[in-house]
Amino acid sequence: MKIKIINPNTSSALNEELRREALKVVRPSTEIIAASPEMGPSSIESFYDEYLSIPGLFKEIRKGDAEEGADAYVIACFGDPGLLGARELTSAPVLGIAEAAMTMASMIAATFSIVTTLPRTRLMSEHLVQHYGMREKCRSVRTTSLHVLDVLADPDASVRQIAEECRKAVEEDRAEAIVLGCAAMAAHKARIERLAGVPVVDGVLAAVKYCEALVDLGAKTSKSLTFAEPEKKTYTGMLRSFGR
Amino acid sequence: MKIKIINPNTSSALNEELRREALKVVRPSTEIIAASPEMGPSSIESFYDEYLSIPGLFKEIRKGDAEEGADAYVIACFGDPGLLGARELTSAPVLGIAEAAMTMASMIAATFSIVTTLPRTRLMSEHLVQHYGMREKCRSVRTTSLHVLDVLADPDASVRQIAEECRKAVEEDRAEAIVLGCAAMAAHKARIERLAGVPVVDGVLAAVKYCEALVDLGAKTSKSLTFAEPEKKTYTGMLRSFGR
Amino acid sequence: MKIKIINPNTSSALNEELRREALKVVRPSTEIIAASPEMGPSSIESFYDEYLSIPGLFKEIRKGDAEEGADAYVIACFGDPGLLGARELTSAPVLGIAEAAMTMASMIAATFSIVTTLPRTRLMSEHLVQHYGMREKCRSVRTTSLHVLDVLADPDASVRQIAEECRKAVEEDRAEAIVLGCAAMAAHKARIERLAGVPVVDGVLAAVKYCEALVDLGAKTSKSLTFAEPEKKTYTGMLRSFGR
Amino acid sequence: MKIKIINPNTSSALNEELRREALKVVRPSTEIIAASPEMGPSSIESFYDEYLSIPGLFKEIRKGDAEEGADAYVIACFGDPGLLGARELTSAPVLGIAEAAMTMASMIAATFSIVTTLPRTRLMSEHLVQHYGMREKCRSVRTTSLHVLDVLADPDASVRQIAEECRKAVEEDRAEAIVLGCAAMAAHKARIERLAGVPVVDGVLAAVKYCEALVDLGAKTSKSLTFAEPEKKTYTGMLRSFGR
Amino acid sequence: MKIKIINPNTSSALNEELRREALKVVRPSTEIIAASPEMGPSSIESFYDEYLSIPGLFKEIRKGDAEEGADAYVIACFGDPGLLGARELTSAPVLGIAEAAMTMASMIAATFSIVTTLPRTRLMSEHLVQHYGMREKCRSVRTTSLHVLDVLADPDASVRQIAEECRKAVEEDRAEAIVLGCAAMAAHKARIERLAGVPVVDGVLAAVKYCEALVDLGAKTSKSLTFAEPEKKTYTGMLRSFGR
Amino acid sequence: MKIKIINPNTSSALNEELRREALKVVRPSTEIIAASPEMGPSSIESFYDEYLSIPGLFKEIRKGDAEEGADAYVIACFGDPGLLGARELTSAPVLGIAEAAMTMASMIAATFSIVTTLPRTRLMSEHLVQHYGMREKCRSVRTTSLHVLDVLADPDASVRQIAEECRKAVEEDRAEAIVLGCAAMAAHKARIERLAGVPVVDGVLAAVKYCEALVDLGAKTSKSLTFAEPEKKTYTGMLRSFGR
Repeated sequence: MKIKIINPNTSSALNEELRREALKVVRPSTEIIAASPEMGPSSIESFYDEYLSIPGLFKEIRKGDAEEGADAYVIACFGDPGLLGARELTSAPVLGIAEAAMTMASMIAATFSIVTTLPRTRLMSEHLVQHYGMREKCRSVRTTSLHVLDVLADPDASVRQIAEECRKAVEEDRAEAIVLGCAAMAAHKARIERLAGVPVVDGVLAAVKYCEALVDLGAKTSKSLTFAEPEKKTYTGMLRSFGR
Repeated sequence: MKIKIINPNTSSALNEELRREALKVVRPSTEIIAASPEMGPSSIESFYDEYLSIPGLFKEIRKGDAEEGADAYVIACFGDPGLLGARELTSAPVLGIAEAAMTMASMIAATFSIVTTLPRTRLMSEHLVQHYGMREKCRSVRTTSLHVLDVLADPDASVRQIAEECRKAVEEDRAEAIVLGCAAMAAHKARIERLAGVPVVDGVLAAVKYCEALVDLGAKTSKSLTFAEPEKKTYTGMLRSFGR
Repeated sequence: MKIKIINPNTSSALNEELRREALKVVRPSTEIIAASPEMGPSSIESFYDEYLSIPGLFKEIRKGDAEEGADAYVIACFGDPGLLGARELTSAPVLGIAEAAMTMASMIAATFSIVTTLPRTRLMSEHLVQHYGMREKCRSVRTTSLHVLDVLADPDASVRQIAEECRKAVEEDRAEAIVLGCAAMAAHKARIERLAGVPVVDGVLAAVKYCEALVDLGAKTSKSLTFAEPEKKTYTGMLRSFGR
Repeated sequence: MKIKIINPNTSSALNEELRREALKVVRPSTEIIAASPEMGPSSIESFYDEYLSIPGLFKEIRKGDAEEGADAYVIACFGDPGLLGARELTSAPVLGIAEAAMTMASMIAATFSIVTTLPRTRLMSEHLVQHYGMREKCRSVRTTSLHVLDVLADPDASVRQIAEECRKAVEEDRAEAIVLGCAAMAAHKARIERLAGVPVVDGVLAAVKYCEALVDLGAKTSKSLTFAEPEKKTYTGMLRSFGR
Repeated sequence: MKIKIINPNTSSALNEELRREALKVVRPSTEIIAASPEMGPSSIESFYDEYLSIPGLFKEIRKGDAEEGADAYVIACFGDPGLLGARELTSAPVLGIAEAAMTMASMIAATFSIVTTLPRTRLMSEHLVQHYGMREKCRSVRTTSLHVLDVLADPDASVRQIAEECRKAVEEDRAEAIVLGCAAMAAHKARIERLAGVPVVDGVLAAVKYCEALVDLGAKTSKSLTFAEPEKKTYTGMLRSFGR
Repeated sequence: MKIKIINPNTSSALNEELRREALKVVRPSTEIIAASPEMGPSSIESFYDEYLSIPGLFKEIRKGDAEEGADAYVIACFGDPGLLGARELTSAPVLGIAEAAMTMASMIAATFSIVTTLPRTRLMSEHLVQHYGMREKCRSVRTTSLHVLDVLADPDASVRQIAEECRKAVEEDRAEAIVLGCAAMAAHKARIERLAGVPVVDGVLAAVKYCEALVDLGAKTSKSLTFAEPEKKTYTGMLRSFGR
């Protein structure tokens, strides 16, 4: 089975790290592709960035279907950008890491908190909590002063700041698990978990494992209504290659 | 005052119609620009289309700010595509037509129904109803077999089909007003209203008038947290011009 | 066009101020009437007061329809007293200032807080937040020690106290805009906005401008079910003149 | 113990009937007063009527406290008009019949439907369902073509029509109990219950018995914040006697 | 009338106390039986304990129906264990004390807080708040370090700790009434109320009085769907006597 | 890895079937134990049955931890009986099949319907939908006339009836996937899926695969608060062996 992790920003430095972490947890026969779009923002920290990461993400899904034979896709950004459109585009399962992480947290803990990047992304996390039906289970969203690229550039300082918010989530908000709100935190999950004292869930790893489960069961995205293939129509200008 | 209506698909045939309808309801001193992006889908009928309309929409907002001196923006597609990103991009007010239509309906009726295009777009309308806090007020979402471009190509047949769903919304679902779920229906609002027997609200007209109100009050989009300007960063590939 | 602002308490001192503020923001051709009922409480600070302001308010709406030729009504008390009954009584649009202020705040900010008068009115604000579908957008309701008449009597001290709560709403509750929870604060909006550092929305001004929009569009209150004219019947005693 | 049933319309014909029904279910030592206001509408079938019944209702509560020594109050109209204001006015318990009926239904059945009067009152019932936290338990609101006074004038035809809606609520909506949505139905509860085949709850009887329970326990309305006595202030005009 | 209070843990020391407190508030002709199951946990402080208290509770209900002629049942544990199953088993009304206490609090106060035992039981209280539709009315759940049996063993220290949390609920969370979250607190209600300064509601007393009301009205649990008698079938092993 | 499927009724006929189906989808190295409790009901079709299945279920979890070395548990009854208590009892992951099935459906479809057994179990499904945050995604719960044991006794007739409800869910309720509401339907999933025309999700298979994912990631149930080990205490009577 082949699972394609799409890191929807163009900072491909993260890709190899995500691939390595994923390979540690999948079974031997599962192949992992980790890729970034050829176009778009170097990191995703606003709705503007998020929306603009989606065209490149769609390209990667098309490539995954047409050339790479991917059996499932993981969108490795905590905003789950483009998820609903991606499910229209392919019949292979597509998971977002926010969806996967919150789902897994709710399977092993009564409540959780999200620890994520910049304060301005709080609303994104709140929308996801609402969309995935986690209002009763999410104790809090805690932001940090970390840009996505800070996590890559200075992991040690980042882990310290993240762990400090985890501690507050557990002590002040009574969270019983932590959801990591950024793909770039995947490699540090074990360290953060030791510091947090409660289970810590990383969405990339959770999503990859859920994809294995879905593929093994032969589960395909429903094409009956909402996620039917996009209607055929003309696309023009810079996006003409997106026409179907 | 200058209000820019951005029809986020590339079918510019609709633009002149929207401009003409808007000019009928604004006050004499208000200028209306109606534009479509240079890139993107010819109509929006899926999440795929919706997400891919957003880059072009952002270009139009930038152009509106930098070159056209727009005081406010209307996103003239019932999915309100890119709205949250657009609010980051400019400090001028930006309104979506779904937001404007539902808001206006709730000001003049206790309940309403949405009558919109293809069945596959139902979920989009439901998400908007939820997002705008209209769960208690929206009696139903009623879809038709109409593609967006059908409404432009055969207005008479379209109006008949839409009016039939309005009738069912009033009689079966007890709707007390109708929200038109497609920008292309704006020009036919009066006719549909006569057939429906209850107030009919078109989002383009509602949004244009609300924009006048916001601009007159000097209201600007809050830049304090969620809608702060996007972080400065590199954009690459086809989207490099989106960097800030 | 003629918009009638009904300040539903009997402290008519406020009326001229409201009219003056409204005239600053409407277009030249819009006339403003500002009136108080002939009967009722001198201010509204409890459910008791609120309910008892409604008969006088209804009289003013009848007078507006029968004698003054009002095209739209604003109920200038943050509890939106009698709003649903007023919509039965007239087919002209009727807006409450809580409704208008929260709606406008949600058009320019992702989240807001309400800053209002006495602690005992908190539940009223919470009911309105719920009724208008603003649960996800309202970060907090912050009360002060201010009686409605204090705001009129000592504006400077009032503004200081209100601004202090605005500051806490922004810093502690992460509000991105402020909704002023009392009609008497309208004249001080600009000053409070400077102190708050985020957009401040006053419901009287918002409602007046929304009324202009509704009237320009020819929007009328739906008479199809909930807001149909009250059934004809006998009224007796002190209220016999309310019979229809 | 003395329980005062206030039928907030001025059709005092119903009062004796309510008193008789109440006396059948209270214990021997409980006295029942049933009264209508001296002013207000002859029946309540709109928000307009409802709001205008409240001043007279408040008079009856004041009289109950000052002259009659009432230990608890029942507001015998399914809209629970003025309930929150009444709780400010007195420290004796005050119950609305919608509140009491839905509460009792939820104690003996997993789900219920409301069968009530005119279609235009549907929204009132829906607001009450929401306000009392019964969204998950209320299967449907079913209206009839009955005016309140029809129920008094032609009980047999009314019972037939109500029973028919009860049958549909049970068969089509899967209701497991019925809440009667009008005080005038109290005397016919037993007959309707036989026809409905599921438990039928009348709010007047439920409220009277709950009042007995509250008084026996010495329960008083909390005066700590929301329901503190209304602030002292001037009332003018026709309502000057409402000043405190 | 005979009301059976089932304290679903096996610490029968509490039973006599509950019976004595109940007898103080029921009318002379009401008999009270207070019993504990013959099997199960000595106290209930986890979901594990709660589920395991249910078989013994069911036995007590069967015994109440078959041998004791009970007219109604109170489940005297704040988790309301087994309530929905108990309603299947008997047609006599069955009330849980969490249900009764929250219902009563909502009849006399706009908002309340729950003060309960160990922190680990917080989720139970939150589930109950949600299930009984009290999300808008419950200001907070406050836990203590008290085991259920501590309340019995050292009432004075327990009351002090509970009263301290009541104080915080009133001052910090703005609760206008307190719901006692443990049956063992019934005997101390008056003392806690004096210290709290707002109405305090004990569920055992509330439930007993509501049972009197239900029985007087002839109200029976609906047997039409959800609460129909359990299907006849074989039970095996230790639980074979539970077969029907 | 060893996954223990606990079919919480005592009809062990189903166990071998569940084990066989599970073995088809797990990877070669995963062992499956399928067991029924030694005590309890022969099937689960009411809250009474559900609660009484839990003690036996707990015994099987203890046995799984102490003797069988189980790495994860699946509760194979659509009510997810005892799930929260089971999570206290062991630190191995425990999944309910309703939880797993709804979660999986939401990963591959925008909406789903549940097709389940007897009408009386509707409320159970509704509670689960609410508890797992699936209110927006669940289009309907459809019941049949099937007892659990009917599905085992006459699979062909059962499949026909289930498929008919699936068809209605797709056509009338617009479900885009089907969740099978009974463990006994697992073996017929493929056949039902062919008839339904949309993806069909069986909770046993979904849960088994999710367990593999959780165990591979080293995920353990959080022991920090709600799911901490039950407090040590005495159990008496028939349940004395449950003491800890």
